[in-house]
Amino acid sequence: MDVLIVGSLAYDSLETPRGSREDELGGSASYGGFSAAFHNRRMSGGGIGLVGVIGEDFNSKHLAWYSSAGLDVSGIETTSGQTFRWKGSYHGNMAEAVTHETHLNVFEHFQPKVPLSHRTPKVLMCANLHPSLQSSVLSQTSAQRLSILDSMNLWINIAHDQLLEVMRDVDLVVLNDGEVRMLASDENLIQAAYKVLEMMDGGILVVKRGEHGVIALHPDGLISMPAYPTSDIMDPTGCGDSFAGAMSQFLANGNGEVSRKELAESLVHATVTASFTIEKFGSERLRNLTVDEYDIRLEEFRIISKTS
Amino acid sequence: MDVLIVGSLAYDSLETPRGSREDELGGSASYGGFSAAFHNRRMSGGGIGLVGVIGEDFNSKHLAWYSSAGLDVSGIETTSGQTFRWKGSYHGNMAEAVTHETHLNVFEHFQPKVPLSHRTPKVLMCANLHPSLQSSVLSQTSAQRLSILDSMNLWINIAHDQLLEVMRDVDLVVLNDGEVRMLASDENLIQAAYKVLEMMDGGILVVKRGEHGVIALHPDGLISMPAYPTSDIMDPTGCGDSFAGAMSQFLANGNGEVSRKELAESLVHATVTASFTIEKFGSERLRNLTVDEYDIRLEEFRIISKTS
Repeated sequence: MDVLIVGSLAYDSLETPRGSREDELGGSASYGGFSAAFHNRRMSGGGIGLVGVIGEDFNSKHLAWYSSAGLDVSGIETTSGQTFRWKGSYHGNMAEAVTHETHLNVFEHFQPKVPLSHRTPKVLMCANLHPSLQSSVLSQTSAQRLSILDSMNLWINIAHDQLLEVMRDVDLVVLNDGEVRMLASDENLIQAAYKVLEMMDGGILVVKRGEHGVIALHPDGLISMPAYPTSDIMDPTGCGDSFAGAMSQFLANGNGEVSRKELAESLVHATVTASFTIEKFGSERLRNLTVDEYDIRLEEFRIISKTS
Repeated sequence: MDVLIVGSLAYDSLETPRGSREDELGGSASYGGFSAAFHNRRMSGGGIGLVGVIGEDFNSKHLAWYSSAGLDVSGIETTSGQTFRWKGSYHGNMAEAVTHETHLNVFEHFQPKVPLSHRTPKVLMCANLHPSLQSSVLSQTSAQRLSILDSMNLWINIAHDQLLEVMRDVDLVVLNDGEVRMLASDENLIQAAYKVLEMMDGGILVVKRGEHGVIALHPDGLISMPAYPTSDIMDPTGCGDSFAGAMSQFLANGNGEVSRKELAESLVHATVTASFTIEKFGSERLRNLTVDEYDIRLEEFRIISKTS
């Protein structure tokens, strides 16, 4: 298995200036999974597994979406109750989501159980989830190359210490700029990022900046690149998760320590992948993405962002 | 003459979280001039001229600063009255200046007169100034390669139509992201930039985004690059002007139509130059910059921002 993704599987109710959707398939593991699966197909990789929980109301059509994308769903548990639900909206330039409702539902008492067959992936991607659940997954798993962690502002507020603990247990942390500023209590993003890296006791920190691109701190130095310049924004939900999913699959292709050059290349793929996610509601664009259209935009991005 | 820079020569009173200064030498032509002069020395270019106006209170020490940087000051007029003064402060992450006072003083009745020897520069840089003064300079000058225009939010508000007129008369317009959004009445920066390009009837549009880097629209396609990741911010005053100054001198080195590749290379130099400006109050860092330290950071920036 190339990448094991643990995270939320959700139904989202979304409103953006471009329209609205009810019960759209979402969640960090869904977006991360569809994104990693695309890159797995593109590179003829070794498979992607999902671990998460769904309720009895989960539509079997959506399980079929996972399977037809090539995702191994044997690690998805079904329990009595409703699937996790999130309701949110985006306004103005859609840079930030406003959360209206969060119903943990089946996630409230979820205890992740990683199947034996899933315990030694090349890359473990702990997508956004309560830090204590991420810790539990880390203790059950032994990533061959790399463990990656994503999180969100909610856990910085209500599970700060547990989050810091699990951040120290992984090789690479991916956060957005607001989360990094919040964790470090520092307005200057570069200073804040170095402070967060210290809290992590080293490793790699990737800071997603939405429309402003991404910076990353690697032991061999900093990386900074712009976003793909998208004017056609339909729904930003899942952009960060598909970013992390693409990065995970790309880093599963290599061996040994992750070099700065390899990290930068993974961020190029993550950037281009996320630029597709935003173009349609939910996972639609990601699920229907072809290798040809991806490769064209990849080359375009390299030209747009060329500095030497 | 490689570059003729027309703009303000000013005394600034500044307050930032890192300290304050009274009567610091500033103004768009000062920052643009010191920046272009640095690149002129670095590339052994053909000289830079300034056109602007100062009052009787102008300190001769500051004229000596211009001259020792290699700037031709024969186009600077001295009239009775006080030099233009601006008082402002920066807060938080210092992304935006708060203006406390603006005293036009000698600029109130200024009619720019471009000396005969200055009328055919390779590049004319109309730095930030009232659009009608920029128009007057354009009509007196015949740039051999390129005319460039910078502006500010004030003129969008109080001289909107004159600004649009002069924007149509130049080859390249440089604005910041807030100004572009304001002119286009569009929150999405990419969409807004294309709308401003239409208002310009084509040409090249460069959009400075401060800590978020720069995008540019060139007939052959878009360019996007990050800023140099600076954590040591002392005073952002003049960053945009030194950005434009470096770009102007770089574009004075070539001939014929400006290619996308050449524009991108000029933006790399502009980005790296501005990253020095911000490290000290006023023009201090720019005036003392050495070619060696510049070249080291230039290479560093290329590595940091490499996407292929």
